Amino acid sequence: MFKKILIANRGEIALRIIRTCKEMGIKTVAVYSKADEESLHVRFADEAVCIGPAPSHESYLKIPNIIAAAEITNADAIHPGYGFLSENSKFSKICAEHEIKFIGASGDQIDKMGDKATAKETMKKAGVPTIPGSEGLLKDVADAKKIAKKMGYPVMIKATAGGGGKGMRAIWSEDQIESNFESAVQEATAAFGNGGMYMEKLIEEPRHIEIQVVGDQYGKACHLSERDCSVQRRHQKLTEETPSPFMTDKLRDAMGKAAVKAAEFIQYEGAGTVEFLVDKHRNFYFMEMNTRIQVEHPITEQVVDYDLIREQILVAGGVPISGKNYFPKLHSIECRINAEDPYNHFRPSPGVITTLHTPGGHGIRLDTHVYSGYRIPPNYDSMIAKLITTAQTREEAINKMRRALDEFVIEGIKTTIPFHRQLMDNPDYLAGNYTTAFMDDFEIDTKYQD
Amino acid sequence: MFKKILIANRGEIALRIIRTCKEMGIKTVAVYSKADEESLHVRFADEAVCIGPAPSHESYLKIPNIIAAAEITNADAIHPGYGFLSENSKFSKICAEHEIKFIGASGDQIDKMGDKATAKETMKKAGVPTIPGSEGLLKDVADAKKIAKKMGYPVMIKATAGGGGKGMRAIWSEDQIESNFESAVQEATAAFGNGGMYMEKLIEEPRHIEIQVVGDQYGKACHLSERDCSVQRRHQKLTEETPSPFMTDKLRDAMGKAAVKAAEFIQYEGAGTVEFLVDKHRNFYFMEMNTRIQVEHPITEQVVDYDLIREQILVAGGVPISGKNYFPKLHSIECRINAEDPYNHFRPSPGVITTLHTPGGHGIRLDTHVYSGYRIPPNYDSMIAKLITTAQTREEAINKMRRALDEFVIEGIKTTIPFHRQLMDNPDYLAGNYTTAFMDDFEIDTKYQD
Repeated sequence: MFKKILIANRGEIALRIIRTCKEMGIKTVAVYSKADEESLHVRFADEAVCIGPAPSHESYLKIPNIIAAAEITNADAIHPGYGFLSENSKFSKICAEHEIKFIGASGDQIDKMGDKATAKETMKKAGVPTIPGSEGLLKDVADAKKIAKKMGYPVMIKATAGGGGKGMRAIWSEDQIESNFESAVQEATAAFGNGGMYMEKLIEEPRHIEIQVVGDQYGKACHLSERDCSVQRRHQKLTEETPSPFMTDKLRDAMGKAAVKAAEFIQYEGAGTVEFLVDKHRNFYFMEMNTRIQVEHPITEQVVDYDLIREQILVAGGVPISGKNYFPKLHSIECRINAEDPYNHFRPSPGVITTLHTPGGHGIRLDTHVYSGYRIPPNYDSMIAKLITTAQTREEAINKMRRALDEFVIEGIKTTIPFHRQLMDNPDYLAGNYTTAFMDDFEIDTKYQD
Repeated sequence: MFKKILIANRGEIALRIIRTCKEMGIKTVAVYSKADEESLHVRFADEAVCIGPAPSHESYLKIPNIIAAAEITNADAIHPGYGFLSENSKFSKICAEHEIKFIGASGDQIDKMGDKATAKETMKKAGVPTIPGSEGLLKDVADAKKIAKKMGYPVMIKATAGGGGKGMRAIWSEDQIESNFESAVQEATAAFGNGGMYMEKLIEEPRHIEIQVVGDQYGKACHLSERDCSVQRRHQKLTEETPSPFMTDKLRDAMGKAAVKAAEFIQYEGAGTVEFLVDKHRNFYFMEMNTRIQVEHPITEQVVDYDLIREQILVAGGVPISGKNYFPKLHSIECRINAEDPYNHFRPSPGVITTLHTPGGHGIRLDTHVYSGYRIPPNYDSMIAKLITTAQTREEAINKMRRALDEFVIEGIKTTIPFHRQLMDNPDYLAGNYTTAFMDDFEIDTKYQD
């Protein structure tokens, strides 16, 4: 097993990884930018190396500096965390060239999954359901009708040069194609100077449900069931839960098998997440694979009694997995606490935390790198804590989250705690009745403000 | 179910109970002494009533003030926590007379278990093994030999007026009786003016292992397996764990059955703990029953996914239990963090907490009522936090405890954190090889000091 691991990251995930390393008796090296000198990951690591100034491209993204830090400190492995270099195939390959074990997927595996088009092709070959779409551009209305008939209504036609909803139409039956196709082409031509259109299956009432997988170095993979991450704002997840309130045993079994198939097809090594869109009929379609640990990994850990960081380290060290899949025994919810002002369009709110009181007790887990007196640098992601509650039922986990949010005191900056309080009172959320469009018409209510 | 519960306690257990009430949607009333005005249990309850000055007998033990607080606030139940009035049968009866539900055992049940001699007689009748002893005083050497033969060697002879080990002898075979009996009588006569002697079975290498039980109002009880609380200093538990490293499936089954038998025999209502001494041959003997929630209840909650406070409230509200027993699925350890100086004979160290940084992350639970700036009053128990780690194995739980103790920063006062750090490095503790005598020759090592 590794003697010393360098953590090429910052914030809560750096601390998260250091914690497991300590528990495994593995020495740790923190790297940090000048803006992060006062960070807990620096304080709790056995060694720490400053790798440059605040901007990420001069420090946390600067591969030569990180490799140099690993060589100076004799680290025999690098854990990339999430974000930054975690899905950078070049970094993975450079680590391998320097005989430093990259705790994650190989460069080839990252390449296979990093490009969405390549990933989709790979998954098709693996037999994993992907979102049906036209091969290339639609020639004309007749071609559109033919393809739509094959994939089944409803469908979307989309401008190949599109964005912001322009040149995009939802079509529910064949008689709607002609007029929509023509108006979309006109709109796209006007907006982008390019009237090229393609077609995709319309995913009705989509939910973002992902399956956690772990693969070992011997081609074997297992899954650890799902996380529902449908509550998103501008594609940023706000809260996640497992099990998904939309899940059935049959669907879990099918999605789990598909995710394992995806991982085994590319001989995936490490912890990864296969993200699916699930429609209201419980059809599921591969979206993408994240070849790294996810922010929301703790909720899975809570319900399957499994330390995913430990498992990442073990499989990177060559330990085989049993191949057994894991199913949720409890219900767990994570709220991402961001230094943002929910009453001002979630604008980042960096600054000094003047008072911090954290919730505790039965069923509460808190992953955070902040402390009273900590200055949140303006340079990085605004997430400052992950509050996780776990209980026997979803209702109890929500009740726990409510009371934990009430106990949580963070002064000196604005946070998303009031937003989460409101969410935990939202009737649709309480009913488990939400899709990826949930936040589109969510109205922030100032009564939840501190 | 109850609408409003008054918590007749303070500190972490008051907060613990408030948390579960909140999660159940039950309003709470805190009571507090003048010394506890700044306590979190006061801040987090829906209402709070000052019941008198700092000395416990003028506030937390003053029944009329507590009953008055319950009546003023219209509380329909009282949760007594542990300590204070929790095992006061008179209080339980007075609550009943005022039609306020006492969340715990009835006055009669407390009476049956409160007096040790009565409890032992009751348990004998129930068929629960108790420590064999002579009925009354030993008449002479011949009588002593006869009784010893019947209960089996080794035995202890003890002065009925004794204390401090005077007039006490361990006897391992019949040929040792005569000389020991005579010298013990002489010693007791000289020390206490009373040479009366009685005999008890000598418990070899005793461990303190207790079984958590829950009984409902319909005469049914279940057990939630054991906690090993052998690591004690002057009969104060310092750390507890479940499962016991000494436990076998067979012993757990036998002890669990005995504990359920004990609870059902007295138609016990609520959460209770049947404490046993277990000798090196895995014989077990009833010691006493605590008719209340225990300090160390969280480790049980962690390994059986069960909220014991919630269950107390449910059974007090008349909800029947299923009768199913619970077995540990994980390993959990609790360290009691006291405001005491382990380098000065564990002398209490009240004062102001100037800095507080609490551990977090995977497998960590912290139950505490303190915060940065909190003044620990000198009037009460010195426990300020319970740090609980949970993992798949004992070794992992210990490793988690080590790293959590390292993260824990409490400045301004002395705490027992360094002692626990040393304990987690102690070879006998690590081997699970400890008895109630463990602390007798434990040498505090200053190298664990901060």
